[in-house]
Amino acid sequence: MIADKMVGLVKGSSAIRAMFEEGKRLASIYGAENVYDFSLGNPNVPAPAEVNQAAIEILSEEKTIAVHGYMSNSGYEEVRAKIANSLNKRFDTNFTEQNIIMTVGAAGGLNVILKTLLNPGDEVIAFAPYFGEYNSYVSNFDGKIVAISPNTENFQPNLTEFEEKISARTKAVIVNSPNNPTGVVYSEDTIKKMADILNKKQEEFSIDIYLISDEPYRELVYDGVEVPYLTKYYANTIVGYSYSKSLSLPGERIGYLVIPDEVADFSMVLGAANVANRILGYVNAPSLFQKVIGKCIDVEMDITPYNRNRELLYNSLVEYGFTCIKPEGAFYLFVKSPVADEKEFCEEAKKHNILVVPGSSFACPGYVRIAYCVAYETIEGALRGFKALAVKYQLS
Amino acid sequence: MIADKMVGLVKGSSAIRAMFEEGKRLASIYGAENVYDFSLGNPNVPAPAEVNQAAIEILSEEKTIAVHGYMSNSGYEEVRAKIANSLNKRFDTNFTEQNIIMTVGAAGGLNVILKTLLNPGDEVIAFAPYFGEYNSYVSNFDGKIVAISPNTENFQPNLTEFEEKISARTKAVIVNSPNNPTGVVYSEDTIKKMADILNKKQEEFSIDIYLISDEPYRELVYDGVEVPYLTKYYANTIVGYSYSKSLSLPGERIGYLVIPDEVADFSMVLGAANVANRILGYVNAPSLFQKVIGKCIDVEMDITPYNRNRELLYNSLVEYGFTCIKPEGAFYLFVKSPVADEKEFCEEAKKHNILVVPGSSFACPGYVRIAYCVAYETIEGALRGFKALAVKYQLS
Repeated sequence: MIADKMVGLVKGSSAIRAMFEEGKRLASIYGAENVYDFSLGNPNVPAPAEVNQAAIEILSEEKTIAVHGYMSNSGYEEVRAKIANSLNKRFDTNFTEQNIIMTVGAAGGLNVILKTLLNPGDEVIAFAPYFGEYNSYVSNFDGKIVAISPNTENFQPNLTEFEEKISARTKAVIVNSPNNPTGVVYSEDTIKKMADILNKKQEEFSIDIYLISDEPYRELVYDGVEVPYLTKYYANTIVGYSYSKSLSLPGERIGYLVIPDEVADFSMVLGAANVANRILGYVNAPSLFQKVIGKCIDVEMDITPYNRNRELLYNSLVEYGFTCIKPEGAFYLFVKSPVADEKEFCEEAKKHNILVVPGSSFACPGYVRIAYCVAYETIEGALRGFKALAVKYQLS
Repeated sequence: MIADKMVGLVKGSSAIRAMFEEGKRLASIYGAENVYDFSLGNPNVPAPAEVNQAAIEILSEEKTIAVHGYMSNSGYEEVRAKIANSLNKRFDTNFTEQNIIMTVGAAGGLNVILKTLLNPGDEVIAFAPYFGEYNSYVSNFDGKIVAISPNTENFQPNLTEFEEKISARTKAVIVNSPNNPTGVVYSEDTIKKMADILNKKQEEFSIDIYLISDEPYRELVYDGVEVPYLTKYYANTIVGYSYSKSLSLPGERIGYLVIPDEVADFSMVLGAANVANRILGYVNAPSLFQKVIGKCIDVEMDITPYNRNRELLYNSLVEYGFTCIKPEGAFYLFVKSPVADEKEFCEEAKKHNILVVPGSSFACPGYVRIAYCVAYETIEGALRGFKALAVKYQLS
């Protein structure tokens, strides 16, 4: 028999991933063009041309043995130095290559840092709605997720409840801004208040609380919104970054952790994160794509297509009578379900070949997530279905 | 503070990795050509030209969004089908794409399968000497390694002790043939006896015992030695494979698991392994290199250089009076230390700029591992040092 812990996980599995498989099934029946799959954050905008050019150059010009070989578990020093410099330029920070560990995407980075920090029973706070995989990542190390209820008015974090729920067992807090699934960006004011609360509680309980900033969507913001760099507001901040969305490389599994000098027990945290990177079986982030990142450090992606999608989808849904916040970043719309049980709504949507993910996967039932990192035509094609759903639920 | 479990690990860290870092340090002082670093299994033979050609073709010709995007957590179906077919042709097995899960190297695959199987306290048997990282992988899931003492006569597994140490808590057995660190290949006779013992014990305790075959060195064998395919000898066998050594791609983190239909609780094991692949943060094996593997499925590496190294190093060391088994596979020599405390010998060797790894890292003190996946010149250059060590310890 398999491990007890895995039995429930296999049965529950990931609703998002189940949708992804369902989408492939429906596409095989109705044709891909007639299925409107908004289930997965799989970017539809291709990686910038510079990415493949860089890869081809490296493969053609550099020594094969060096390109595909082992390096230090933390990654190539020169790539880490470039990342540090780029962050310093953009955010006025003071990182060196020492502060950067290359990881197998942000999911790898989060697992590394949670393994580094958590003792069994330690609490990790997350603000609902949050990416459901955090539950599994924390449970991997026998930690306990403490969810802060959603503030459904504007989906900014509920700081009153946050302050109440910090305990002597709180080891870490995960924030994710721009947010999956709401697209909300935490304002500088919010971050400052959060830092104040954390500092106060660290003192009150004589503990270190690490703020883990999960930032795969940092580069995906609209209307010139600023995303504060959290290490500047709270000393005990560790950043997890991924190129999955910012360079459309989700399959390649490439990202990094930033562990600033100011973090409590810096050298132990850094050492343990390196060991965790190795013993969790990542060993190191994929080598070719580390080098590609080194060459593409200043490459920016054109997010105009996502913005176009955002405008069309948001404006249309609101026009039909749906309720949702206009996202400032990422590529998700978090829409209030017209019925209390949003899974019922997801099933109704499926009748129109529309796939969306129930909010309960994000600890926020009553809502659904629509990932609009799809072709514009997919949104256009789905509008008739969304309109029919609005009529059915008498939204306008 | 960091997790209690990590404190010891950071201090102990990996002796092999520490050596790797030490090698880089020495090289910066004495020049790379004057440091004889035999510490890491980092292949010196470059990946076959077909690998980079395949990568460039994929990057140039295939749709960027498909090359770098998410796919099912288990990997691209067509790549998995090709692997299954290739195994079937070579080993007369009956796998389909359903039996294959693409993983982040063998280290990723082992962590996936151990997370799938282990409850806290479950026992995993390994035959000393064994790759020291198994300790960490098993400990990641609160399992307990049960080591079978080395049979230093020929380094075939000690089957008498094996039979004695199987208990009602035994959940898995890890074998690694061709073996790191000895280079020994387990004979068909050994495998058959092992299977008989496992079947008997499964019945005796009414349990399922999974045999995990860690096979990164399968393709690296000399003198035409055959490596039996274990799924054919014992139904409950799961294979972990990696292209790190067979195609010299250790940095790229690409491998797979084979979970045959015959395995106990097949569908639960398969489902849980898929979930584990995702929630451990791998999400999926790197996408470009999955596709590269699909194109290079029948590419074989020329292992003549390793064989040449093996002959020179083995013959020279034996001539100088060192004691070791001639390896039949992999690219390691496991040499008896001339002093009981092999760490003392490692320190002596370092005085000649020779880096080798203590056998205690492989649960087999009194020996050292010499990784000969290096340039021929490195071995030539080191011989003077080895000779001096032989003289110092009066070996001949």
